[in-house]
Amino acid sequence: MSRYPKPMARLIEELTRLPGVGPKTAQRLSYFMIGMSEEEVHNLATAILEAKQRIKFCSQCFQLTEEDPCPFCSDDRRDRTIICVVEEPRDVLAIERTKEFHGLYHVLHGAISPLEGIGPEDLRITELMSRLGPEVKEVLLATDPNVEGEATAMYLARLIKPLGIRVTRMAHGMPVGSDLEYVDEVTLGKALEGRREL
Amino acid sequence: MSRYPKPMARLIEELTRLPGVGPKTAQRLSYFMIGMSEEEVHNLATAILEAKQRIKFCSQCFQLTEEDPCPFCSDDRRDRTIICVVEEPRDVLAIERTKEFHGLYHVLHGAISPLEGIGPEDLRITELMSRLGPEVKEVLLATDPNVEGEATAMYLARLIKPLGIRVTRMAHGMPVGSDLEYVDEVTLGKALEGRREL
Repeated sequence: MSRYPKPMARLIEELTRLPGVGPKTAQRLSYFMIGMSEEEVHNLATAILEAKQRIKFCSQCFQLTEEDPCPFCSDDRRDRTIICVVEEPRDVLAIERTKEFHGLYHVLHGAISPLEGIGPEDLRITELMSRLGPEVKEVLLATDPNVEGEATAMYLARLIKPLGIRVTRMAHGMPVGSDLEYVDEVTLGKALEGRREL
Repeated sequence: MSRYPKPMARLIEELTRLPGVGPKTAQRLSYFMIGMSEEEVHNLATAILEAKQRIKFCSQCFQLTEEDPCPFCSDDRRDRTIICVVEEPRDVLAIERTKEFHGLYHVLHGAISPLEGIGPEDLRITELMSRLGPEVKEVLLATDPNVEGEATAMYLARLIKPLGIRVTRMAHGMPVGSDLEYVDEVTLGKALEGRREL
């Protein structure tokens, strides 16, 4: 009798499969869910099932979407001469919030990481290459500014440049609103290197 | 277009209701769930629904259970003269694992905490008092050894002692396998105070 009732044990087991959820967190979440109202529990379960059922990847840019092609790829007002390459679907939303970019996107779904066993063949790179028709003038590599993101950008630049397409990368520099004293030295170095005249 | 597709936004919103799950975690979990197989997602949703449907509280001790009364309360081999009072259902499992206690349990579902606005009326205290018939000789107050747990134990002791029932509390002392140097001074003080002859 020193075990949980079966449905509880099963719920804990299922929750433990989620990223960042260990046995303790799974236990806490289970208790919480059992304490929720019938309606709340039903809403949660339905939300999970519906998201899985209705969300797919856009067959062109691999962004999450309900319709294929996604609202970006099917929007005629977007600039089709520039493609912004990002690692994850959420990166698209981050860039959209700036309202500074009006081209198309391409989501790689990860970055090259030999340590985690992720190679170029695990990313949507072949699909990116097949999109680079004559109308594409620029590819903006907006992968993360860390080791994996830089490696992925380098790898892609080497593939795309020979096609005569302009390949760009986001500027490095001081985060807006930051404090010079607390900015790491690499960022500070890049910010100095890329200084602009006022 | 700087928002998630609706089913995704809804899933994130539902997940954010869970304890310890902020927007970032909810987003990460959502991506993961969408990437899971149909079967895995179905298993997760079913586990949540079934746990909620099949798990109830024992009407006597308020432990989580599939059958009411729970296996503890309906087991004739358990010692009915002693009731161990704990804060949470998981505490019952922790005590069972010691194999040292063979009485009945009572789960309060929390501890008195004025800061969090939890008073005695929010706990299963009335239900505990109504269980204290003539056959009960001892109540072991196994609430947590922290401010809230101690306050709850004091409160209960004051209610139960006048009934002529023995009220006990777990011994304080050095954790087994611990290092004297790293044990906090309050625990060390209690361990010295409660020293036993060998």
